[in-house]
Amino acid sequence: MKVALTPPSRLFTSDNAGGAHPDVIAAMVRANEGHALAYGQDNYTREAKQLFSKLFDADVRTEFVFGGTGANVLALACMLRPAEAVVCSSWAHIASDETGAPERILGAKLIDLPSSDGKLRPEDLQSVAYMLGNLHHAQPAVVSITQATELGTLYSAVEVRELCDTAHEMGMLVHMDGARLANASAALGATPEALRSFTIDAGVDVLSFGGTKAGIIFGEAVVFLNPNLGERVEFIRKQVTQLHSKMRFISAQYIELLRDGLFFRLGTQANAMSMALYERTKHHQSLGLVTPPAVNSLYPRILEPARRALQDWSFFWDWDTAADQVRWMTAWDTTLADVDAFAKGIESVL
Amino acid sequence: MKVALTPPSRLFTSDNAGGAHPDVIAAMVRANEGHALAYGQDNYTREAKQLFSKLFDADVRTEFVFGGTGANVLALACMLRPAEAVVCSSWAHIASDETGAPERILGAKLIDLPSSDGKLRPEDLQSVAYMLGNLHHAQPAVVSITQATELGTLYSAVEVRELCDTAHEMGMLVHMDGARLANASAALGATPEALRSFTIDAGVDVLSFGGTKAGIIFGEAVVFLNPNLGERVEFIRKQVTQLHSKMRFISAQYIELLRDGLFFRLGTQANAMSMALYERTKHHQSLGLVTPPAVNSLYPRILEPARRALQDWSFFWDWDTAADQVRWMTAWDTTLADVDAFAKGIESVL
Amino acid sequence: MKVALTPPSRLFTSDNAGGAHPDVIAAMVRANEGHALAYGQDNYTREAKQLFSKLFDADVRTEFVFGGTGANVLALACMLRPAEAVVCSSWAHIASDETGAPERILGAKLIDLPSSDGKLRPEDLQSVAYMLGNLHHAQPAVVSITQATELGTLYSAVEVRELCDTAHEMGMLVHMDGARLANASAALGATPEALRSFTIDAGVDVLSFGGTKAGIIFGEAVVFLNPNLGERVEFIRKQVTQLHSKMRFISAQYIELLRDGLFFRLGTQANAMSMALYERTKHHQSLGLVTPPAVNSLYPRILEPARRALQDWSFFWDWDTAADQVRWMTAWDTTLADVDAFAKGIESVL
Amino acid sequence: MKVALTPPSRLFTSDNAGGAHPDVIAAMVRANEGHALAYGQDNYTREAKQLFSKLFDADVRTEFVFGGTGANVLALACMLRPAEAVVCSSWAHIASDETGAPERILGAKLIDLPSSDGKLRPEDLQSVAYMLGNLHHAQPAVVSITQATELGTLYSAVEVRELCDTAHEMGMLVHMDGARLANASAALGATPEALRSFTIDAGVDVLSFGGTKAGIIFGEAVVFLNPNLGERVEFIRKQVTQLHSKMRFISAQYIELLRDGLFFRLGTQANAMSMALYERTKHHQSLGLVTPPAVNSLYPRILEPARRALQDWSFFWDWDTAADQVRWMTAWDTTLADVDAFAKGIESVL
Repeated sequence: MKVALTPPSRLFTSDNAGGAHPDVIAAMVRANEGHALAYGQDNYTREAKQLFSKLFDADVRTEFVFGGTGANVLALACMLRPAEAVVCSSWAHIASDETGAPERILGAKLIDLPSSDGKLRPEDLQSVAYMLGNLHHAQPAVVSITQATELGTLYSAVEVRELCDTAHEMGMLVHMDGARLANASAALGATPEALRSFTIDAGVDVLSFGGTKAGIIFGEAVVFLNPNLGERVEFIRKQVTQLHSKMRFISAQYIELLRDGLFFRLGTQANAMSMALYERTKHHQSLGLVTPPAVNSLYPRILEPARRALQDWSFFWDWDTAADQVRWMTAWDTTLADVDAFAKGIESVL
Repeated sequence: MKVALTPPSRLFTSDNAGGAHPDVIAAMVRANEGHALAYGQDNYTREAKQLFSKLFDADVRTEFVFGGTGANVLALACMLRPAEAVVCSSWAHIASDETGAPERILGAKLIDLPSSDGKLRPEDLQSVAYMLGNLHHAQPAVVSITQATELGTLYSAVEVRELCDTAHEMGMLVHMDGARLANASAALGATPEALRSFTIDAGVDVLSFGGTKAGIIFGEAVVFLNPNLGERVEFIRKQVTQLHSKMRFISAQYIELLRDGLFFRLGTQANAMSMALYERTKHHQSLGLVTPPAVNSLYPRILEPARRALQDWSFFWDWDTAADQVRWMTAWDTTLADVDAFAKGIESVL
Repeated sequence: MKVALTPPSRLFTSDNAGGAHPDVIAAMVRANEGHALAYGQDNYTREAKQLFSKLFDADVRTEFVFGGTGANVLALACMLRPAEAVVCSSWAHIASDETGAPERILGAKLIDLPSSDGKLRPEDLQSVAYMLGNLHHAQPAVVSITQATELGTLYSAVEVRELCDTAHEMGMLVHMDGARLANASAALGATPEALRSFTIDAGVDVLSFGGTKAGIIFGEAVVFLNPNLGERVEFIRKQVTQLHSKMRFISAQYIELLRDGLFFRLGTQANAMSMALYERTKHHQSLGLVTPPAVNSLYPRILEPARRALQDWSFFWDWDTAADQVRWMTAWDTTLADVDAFAKGIESVL
Repeated sequence: MKVALTPPSRLFTSDNAGGAHPDVIAAMVRANEGHALAYGQDNYTREAKQLFSKLFDADVRTEFVFGGTGANVLALACMLRPAEAVVCSSWAHIASDETGAPERILGAKLIDLPSSDGKLRPEDLQSVAYMLGNLHHAQPAVVSITQATELGTLYSAVEVRELCDTAHEMGMLVHMDGARLANASAALGATPEALRSFTIDAGVDVLSFGGTKAGIIFGEAVVFLNPNLGERVEFIRKQVTQLHSKMRFISAQYIELLRDGLFFRLGTQANAMSMALYERTKHHQSLGLVTPPAVNSLYPRILEPARRALQDWSFFWDWDTAADQVRWMTAWDTTLADVDAFAKGIESVL
């Protein structure tokens, strides 16, 4: 079996297959003018930090890092003391997709709890309460949730708040891995108010704020919604290898992302394209796409040889080969033409 | 005291105060076209890796990381076993300027030896031979040298070779921190042959290959001149938070740096400007500039209030305040006009 | 409710509530004569190591440590490389009862798999095979099993062999946590041959050999059944804080334990007393003791207020309070008189 | 050359070559009666802790560990935050003789300063003040001093106080490694008051209290003179593998050591024997023993073949072979007869 159509111009493999938005590129070119002090002592970084405080309507502390695993590790390093543990879903990126970076760099246990949808609930936290105070157990001290989750699901603002309340009552802090925060924000309102509703207003303490998947070249932000937790972040960032000398180039991208809502618009576009793909393919019952995507990914089932034929034509990743499940993911730059082309290819093999 | 002249357009603070070369920026813009698989499975990365093998005229293994501390940590992580130690100069960046990243991430001791010029010599290695085989001492297993050193000095190819020979005879491996490799290469011949003479030909095992200070935006390379040592590097890179998803953007910059000698030309320019500044200022005996710079930095002495007046006019860093010593450092983009303007300012306060 | 009988002379809380066998104490007193070189360069240590090679009928490498968590950490530290992970049951002591020591000291991920009886099976290992070679996952490299398990169950020699075969085929090594190896050995034959059948003969690579629960004061052994894995153990032992200076005192205890089968006899006694307690209590159907104990612990259910009354009288630990389950554990020195007294107390509250 | 005399009954190799005092052995035998709850929930441990509070005349927090490296690592783990460093002498046991345990387990840098006599002075601390607040440097946060030092020298109470004052003014804490605290205490007065004068009264925050070299079999104490620093010590102790299940056996030894001054008497005896050896040998000018020993070791120079002949007869360790320097060390059980016999042997080869 082979697909003979023209493939889409962009891949449905992952949101990190896309490049950067033209405005972001232009901002980097502008930032390349002349000299600037290194390590964040530059005007771009000052401005970018202010934009974060404006975004969250609070005096948050923001620091930039190179990448997503670095953001998570830095956030957690600022939140943990010796002999403490992080509670997370077994689907969590920190537990499943960071090659043990948290264990190596934090020296901390991850208590990863089973979850059918990638989300944690208050009762999950209560299930580890028996460990508290028992010296034979690493002490649950931080809950880390991912928004949107690794399974393409979303926490509502109410759900995050309930989780935060339970965590805080148990003496724990809350970290949110927002590698796909743009998509989550777009799905929940696409405004600063919407973003605040499920982060700072809900009680999240520290946020890994993802930019790479949202349309920039590199650089993530760690936002200390509880700024006290970031008191020593600059030392720790350098220690965990996440301090960029030419920081203005990260900051300039974030200025572009935040100053006029580009962050929300790009998330919205990716989500819309995922929904469009869903609309064009849901009638194939064999795909098993029974519910519309919450954000920017679909997890259909396709049997061989159709699957292989499609992948040879326009590559995407397997998700669960035992279940013949794959992942289709849209990016900030996916277009309707891409969706149409891709849907036609799918059509041709089913 | 105040300097009333027009300051130079560029700073003499550090080579990381400069931006990226226009050709590098252009290469990144080109690389922004369309989608590419993440994590290095793209054509830019393939091409960049080949350019490294061509540069070293050997089948080396090259992997990209975000930054310099990350490069050093990754290189050493691939070279060390439990209970082993790294021998370095007490001036080494890994020992003095990485906020304990090696200790935290490697869990390894750094044995930092005093050195008046930032260089290690065979007898320094022999001074730790007594530790070998003694179970109470972390075992010296890797020698890490910096080229050019943190003090602006250079190892000759012969010196590196003698150090490597001694290290290997003692059962140790050799790592070279080449954050300023462009400057070192330029000073020693500015050709691939020259670069090889003090790296692969001299016996260095693993090299942190610096691009950021040499004119790019971000991204360093770890080059396993002994490719066996890089067998598990991809897993370890992810674990130490140094894997960039959109890797093509690092690779595209390195293609530009390496394909036509830009790396050597930019190092040469920075060195030449340092030499020009030396020529324009050496006659002021109070500055104590008795020997020309080996690469791109000068360490003059200037008393207050002249020092402060100069720094207020065109900022540079103190080096050793107790000795009234400062550092003037040129970058790949420093021009003769910058040097002239800076030298005039110096003239005006002395 | 209150128990008014005379409580047993010994507790049923844990096998570490007991002291040391009189012969072991006597051996320590003898070893206290005069001076001996520190750190294992003494005759007691030489003799003890030889007894281990005799026990396993092979040229194994044995090194002593202070405690059980230290033994496990040291064993695993000798088996792991960077970015590798340990596969274990979620009941494993290393996962649940060592306060994150493995994560902190090894910097490695534990992949803990659910298990209803505390045992792993070949299919559990196969369930993580998909991780192998994927750079985003810590690489499963060591399987750690506990014999007898934390739930009082046993692997047969055949089961261990099948697990080792699967692990080795997948490129993994096998560690056995033998904190209760005396009990396991006793249950499976109480001879060196029996011990070998489920350890060295079955393919286990490294063994944490437990002495503390088997009747000594302190000190565990790490036995490298595959002696190559122990090549650097002496350096690593010191590094993980497990090297005792006055090592003769650990060695002397092990000589006593091994020279004449005391190890097997004490394990047998503990097991027999657990069985005796089972025989005296199994007729109380409310306790739910439907199967005889494999080794030295029982996990009955007792409702309040009977449970509290019993604990106030002769303390033992809760196991799973939600299920009203407790743990009764016998030690090497538990006597029939203790069992009878305890059983009478139980009788009195049911 | 050969020594034909009868060698001394005890070695002059190290204070860890001796066994335990008979009263300590007797205490362990007594503690072996019956069952006791594990992990320190026993009466012996309660009593031992109270004796420490009495010794220091303050409500200190004391926790027992297995060994000296473990004591130091645990103490420092309770004192350090991420990105912080320990300042110590380059002779410090933690820097030179623990195989990198601090770096591995703490993930922290040791800033080891040169010292001709093994002692640090206030100006040493001031020499690292420039690092404070600079994000590129691990932050000096704990000063660790050894009393008596690894070179057999002593801090006076005044010297310790001045060091503590400087450290505290700089925002640093003070740890004292007291592996030979018995010898130091004996030299400075041999009373609780004397001990307090250079520890709690001088401002030391946390103390590694050594028992092993002072006449017991195993077990050291970490004494939080500032009890707030020990708030989480029980969790951290387990995490760093230093929690003994049968803790009563450590505690019983300490009860014996502390209840009636045995600790001071044994330190005094070791010191006195060192002084006696000095008196018997100082007239040999070639030995270079120009000053009497402060505690229990001498560092004479002896040329070959006399050195080898002596070592073959009654072994002791080389100290600095390049300088023909050796170490003679007395223990708590060294007798005058031992000293006389050893001195005669020395006499015979000079």
